Amino acid sequence: MQLTAYVNGNMLPLQDACIHIEDRGFQFADGVYEVIACINGTFLDLDMHLQRLRYSCEAIAIDLPCPLHEMAARIEAIYHANPFEDAMIYVQITRGRAARAHLPNTMPTPSLIMTVRELPAPSCETLTQGASAITLDDIRWKRCDIKSIALLASVMGRQEARRRQADETIWLDEQGHMLEGCSTNVLAVIDGSLVTHPLDHQVLGGITRRLALQLARQHGIRVVERPWHLHEAGLQECMLSSTTQGIVPVCYIDGQAIGGGTPGKLTLQLRDWLLQHFDELRQEKTHHA
Amino acid sequence: MQLTAYVNGNMLPLQDACIHIEDRGFQFADGVYEVIACINGTFLDLDMHLQRLRYSCEAIAIDLPCPLHEMAARIEAIYHANPFEDAMIYVQITRGRAARAHLPNTMPTPSLIMTVRELPAPSCETLTQGASAITLDDIRWKRCDIKSIALLASVMGRQEARRRQADETIWLDEQGHMLEGCSTNVLAVIDGSLVTHPLDHQVLGGITRRLALQLARQHGIRVVERPWHLHEAGLQECMLSSTTQGIVPVCYIDGQAIGGGTPGKLTLQLRDWLLQHFDELRQEKTHHA
Repeated sequence: MQLTAYVNGNMLPLQDACIHIEDRGFQFADGVYEVIACINGTFLDLDMHLQRLRYSCEAIAIDLPCPLHEMAARIEAIYHANPFEDAMIYVQITRGRAARAHLPNTMPTPSLIMTVRELPAPSCETLTQGASAITLDDIRWKRCDIKSIALLASVMGRQEARRRQADETIWLDEQGHMLEGCSTNVLAVIDGSLVTHPLDHQVLGGITRRLALQLARQHGIRVVERPWHLHEAGLQECMLSSTTQGIVPVCYIDGQAIGGGTPGKLTLQLRDWLLQHFDELRQEKTHHA
Repeated sequence: MQLTAYVNGNMLPLQDACIHIEDRGFQFADGVYEVIACINGTFLDLDMHLQRLRYSCEAIAIDLPCPLHEMAARIEAIYHANPFEDAMIYVQITRGRAARAHLPNTMPTPSLIMTVRELPAPSCETLTQGASAITLDDIRWKRCDIKSIALLASVMGRQEARRRQADETIWLDEQGHMLEGCSTNVLAVIDGSLVTHPLDHQVLGGITRRLALQLARQHGIRVVERPWHLHEAGLQECMLSSTTQGIVPVCYIDGQAIGGGTPGKLTLQLRDWLLQHFDELRQEKTHHA
């Protein structure tokens, strides 16, 4: 199956999609990215992803390669150039190519790269039995609010999770608070409230995290953004949120069962509300079309 | 001037040297590197660089693309394929190409990339007037002992240094200890002793750092590896060490003069010993030839 990629203005077969070895994305992790889900032609929260992309670029002083509305058009085009109804569009911006030096003498032209893959549905197993996680002391940098491609620490976190037969690693701050996963936010239900770490330099402002909090509030659930521990009295449920998987229950952490080792009620409820929200987005689009 | 690069077994013009956009070095900073100096055909401490390359690869579980002696031969070949007598050889190893996922399902083949640039001599100005630095709270990850390509924090450090008209940013730990620069180790002379932060997860085991300590000891200078502050009583000199620049005096930090604002005596002495050491390496090589 032929896939199409986008590289600096060109659409081309993925297998031929290359970048210069002195692109600063390759030599300095000097870039940022987004992963955007598209279900049956409807992009989920595209605006929020584009806003965050702009935030990330600004944080490391890379100029956007084009205005956001043009970026949206290119994202739509690369989606339609690929064979998936349900897709994730990967968008990466780097500072561009320059002779290797921590700071180039002249500002290069930023690179814009996009690829499209099929959106993986969470396995039935994950939804009925829940995911498992381990916890590790956070070794990442202190600007996790920037969605940068400097992801090596997260790769290492996943390596350790796999070694211990778990699905995700949840990073702990120095006081042992639960921060986030390697590519997920982490939320808990504690005494009936939905609890998650507040937004700061230790966690990414996840778009599904934000949606989950919003949907919970709309349905009268109390939402508390505060640091929290795995061993708090009153901890009932735990879940991961991400663009590609939505809300996924976590039933085991460091080998210990959470909420009896079965997916939590509010977790599954939130997952339903989220899917419902996406359905509404699709219907809105149909009405507008 | 035509430069030649090495990419996964091929020597090719640098301008055509590309890597696939799904190489994990580009999407995850999932790789490591070395910069090796070669003066007039003599590689400086090549073995130490190769040992460190192996250490970095092992730390993130990437297989070396070839045995170290073969790597050395390829480094020699790419040096000779380029027009510089005094050169820096940049060697990068990444986990290779895989469809984007934090952990690929099957282990890809590691990528090996090399480029060669002219070795920049420190400007006369830097040596007579010294370099300037600023200090910033360390925002980097906690595995700075690995020479990884996840260098975005260091890029940001250099951006801030340039904004404040300084040459380097020195990272501070939470207690305000001087750790290292964005691409340099930092050493001080305190009460006549050569002092530098001990090797741990916050600093890279710099090869020039190690040589400087060794040369100081050989000449009867007391060497102390311990955390140190900029504002310690007895601070006389400050210097940066790196493969590409050797030993460089630092005369201003955060706008304050160090040791009266002129290069320190021991700093310049160490720089001489280092250059002498490199001369000896070259002579040894001539004798062997």
